[in-house]
Amino acid sequence: MNSTTSIIGFIAAILTTVSFVPQVLKVWRTRSAKDVSLGMYLLFTLGIAAWLVYGVLIESWPVILANVVTLILAGAVLVMKLKFG
Amino acid sequence: MNSTTSIIGFIAAILTTVSFVPQVLKVWRTRSAKDVSLGMYLLFTLGIAAWLVYGVLIESWPVILANVVTLILAGAVLVMKLKFG
Repeated sequence: MNSTTSIIGFIAAILTTVSFVPQVLKVWRTRSAKDVSLGMYLLFTLGIAAWLVYGVLIESWPVILANVVTLILAGAVLVMKLKFG
Repeated sequence: MNSTTSIIGFIAAILTTVSFVPQVLKVWRTRSAKDVSLGMYLLFTLGIAAWLVYGVLIESWPVILANVVTLILAGAVLVMKLKFG
C-alpha cells in the first residue's frame, strides 16, 4: 500500500470517528434526541462492537483504536437517546 | 484470515451499513431532523466518501460496496437535514 492510499485511509478513519462528536454534544446540550433513531444506534453500536472484535482478531491497532473511540461516542448517543427520548 | 474472523467482519460491515436505514426512514416519515447533527452528517458523509476512494485504491470490493450503500444512506439523511432542518 503506498503512502497516498494510507493517508486517505487515515483521513477516512478520523472523519467517520470524530463525526459523532457534534452529535453527542448536540443531544447533551439540548437534552433531546427525538429525531435520532433508536434502531440506528442499537444496530450501529452493535456493529462497531463487532468491528472492534474484528480489529482484535486481525491484530490491527488502527481498527481497534478507531472503533474504541467510535464505540464510546455512539454508545453515549444511545444512552442519551434512552434517557432523554 | 480464518473464516470466523471473516464472518465477524461481514457481520460488522452489514450492521454499520444497514443501521442508517431506520434513521433515513424516521426523518423521512416525521419530516423532522432537528435533533440530528448537521456537523455529524457533513463529516460522516465526507469520511465515507474517503473510505470509498480508499476501497477503490486498495481494490477491495467489500469496502467499496459497503461504503457505496452507506454513502447513499448517510447522504439521504444529510439532504433531508438540509431540507427539513
